[in-house]
Amino acid sequence: MTRPHLPADGADTVGAVGEFGVIDRVVARAGTAALADVGPGDDAAVVRTPDGRVVASTDVLVEGRHFRRDWSSAEDVGHKAAAANLADVAAMGAVPTALLVGLACPAGTPTAWLEGVAAGMAAECAPHGAAVVGGDTVASAPDSAAVVLSVTVLGDLQGRTPVTRDGARPGDVVAVAGRLGWSACGWAVLRRGFTSPHAVVTAHRRPSPPYAAGPAAADAGATAMCDVSDGLLADAGHLAEASSVVLDLDRGTLQSFVEPEGPLAQVAAAGGGNALAWVLTGGEDHAILATFPAAADLPAGFVRIGVVEAGPAGVRVDGIPAADVAEGLGEVPGHVHFG
Amino acid sequence: MTRPHLPADGADTVGAVGEFGVIDRVVARAGTAALADVGPGDDAAVVRTPDGRVVASTDVLVEGRHFRRDWSSAEDVGHKAAAANLADVAAMGAVPTALLVGLACPAGTPTAWLEGVAAGMAAECAPHGAAVVGGDTVASAPDSAAVVLSVTVLGDLQGRTPVTRDGARPGDVVAVAGRLGWSACGWAVLRRGFTSPHAVVTAHRRPSPPYAAGPAAADAGATAMCDVSDGLLADAGHLAEASSVVLDLDRGTLQSFVEPEGPLAQVAAAGGGNALAWVLTGGEDHAILATFPAAADLPAGFVRIGVVEAGPAGVRVDGIPAADVAEGLGEVPGHVHFG
Repeated sequence: MTRPHLPADGADTVGAVGEFGVIDRVVARAGTAALADVGPGDDAAVVRTPDGRVVASTDVLVEGRHFRRDWSSAEDVGHKAAAANLADVAAMGAVPTALLVGLACPAGTPTAWLEGVAAGMAAECAPHGAAVVGGDTVASAPDSAAVVLSVTVLGDLQGRTPVTRDGARPGDVVAVAGRLGWSACGWAVLRRGFTSPHAVVTAHRRPSPPYAAGPAAADAGATAMCDVSDGLLADAGHLAEASSVVLDLDRGTLQSFVEPEGPLAQVAAAGGGNALAWVLTGGEDHAILATFPAAADLPAGFVRIGVVEAGPAGVRVDGIPAADVAEGLGEVPGHVHFG
Repeated sequence: MTRPHLPADGADTVGAVGEFGVIDRVVARAGTAALADVGPGDDAAVVRTPDGRVVASTDVLVEGRHFRRDWSSAEDVGHKAAAANLADVAAMGAVPTALLVGLACPAGTPTAWLEGVAAGMAAECAPHGAAVVGGDTVASAPDSAAVVLSVTVLGDLQGRTPVTRDGARPGDVVAVAGRLGWSACGWAVLRRGFTSPHAVVTAHRRPSPPYAAGPAAADAGATAMCDVSDGLLADAGHLAEASSVVLDLDRGTLQSFVEPEGPLAQVAAAGGGNALAWVLTGGEDHAILATFPAAADLPAGFVRIGVVEAGPAGVRVDGIPAADVAEGLGEVPGHVHFG
């Protein structure tokens, strides 16, 4: 992996300023969490939990696997790391309140890069009143020059019942809010050495999850919900498995996510890949996938993409098993983390 | 770093069973958190917060920096990772309720090793009614064969006011509960290729923080508190800095932590190091350091080791600046994470 923006060890590196120098600089850019009674710098943070419960989730991002410093700016990485976590909270029907960040990085990491990550996280969190309230910074493994970021998000349900993955019932409607396939398309563009169409490259660098859709779905009576981080077919599979149902998706509707004049169609037409494959198997846009009772009014932003049926747990597209559909598109359904 | 227990990639590795295989095996050993409404396997966990606030802290452990697989069993690593976090919660005056674990590991990691880590964490958490409720598992950086563990702990204050680091006032008493120097002595023993005295080697592999001392200190009116993770002089320095006071420690009392017939004296007598240096600068025993009003009754387990005075923030031992004391012992005060 190339790292054009990385100077050698020097005055502005993590090794030169030390752990507490890093913490001071990062904290200065962390913003303030509206519900934090104790923020960064003590043994632990203290965050108010008005609901009486706290929602908590952790996502790990590894350089060279989840981001590349030559493809994404530090701010991009901060936005992306925060977004992946905030979307998990939204997918429970909650709103985010605070982040904690575990960071392992080489001594040669520029402090400016970490400050950029902190600024990106702060910007992604600020509209929610959330911010980084704690964390830990250590040196990378002796054999590694890569950054590892482990981000934990806390959230508040504001009185809602958490929407888990196991409540989908036959007869329910399947719906999705947000983009599908944009991040995957952007990744395909970057991998070929291009940086446009800008819209999909930006979607890869800084996903824009439909955060408000999660609580709105919970309020509308969603029976099951998750975010699409591994790809629609894969995450629909997790939901189907947890609920012991079949999710039968409508290929025509999913095809319509490839807008004829949009960037996915444009990249595909230029030979950059299969647009429907991105929609069905691309992860990291963090769309919100939910099931609703047939009589429910879908909240704004949700598009009906299928129905829940009884049967051996799994996902079908127009009745065809997901694995066969994905294979027909030359894709495996979803990320394989240890390939 | 040698890894005698690591087989080549094969049927029982993370790469062979995949992310969800890992999660299934680890969750099976996670135990149950008494306050968890939603545990592992969904987008996020949901944990009850009876106090109306949640305490949260993150610690990162990197293989080759914080543990070695040839020095510590998988269970040891799980105990140690959990203990470091549980001690942070105790040092706020709270009790732990749940852990989340971010894990980056190479595809060749034996699943049995991760199951051992999970079992160690579960055993360390169980007496508190806490357990792992969520996390994320990804492949290590492409350039690394090391495991990185980022553990986040949640805790409940049970109505107590959180005891931060900034409340020490001149006239207060300085006291400590728990062991000092045992982990550092154990590390010195292991580094020289020995495995006894067993007591200090075990203390290095599985620290035994005095968890109950934290809430007890809060109940007794502690004015400031932290855990000793970087070494007594270093952590006393953080507390002094946050409170803008001088902590003047009594050398004779600290010398008494080197029990004449105990393992520290024994290893030092055999030429293995300086016992007082371990007491003053050794971290990772996670003792609880606190300041109390002079009139307070110290809770059980606390030993008075000094007094708080006015003056430029810092730590002194019998009036001598900590840096000079440490230098006289041939040590730097506390961990340097990016040396």
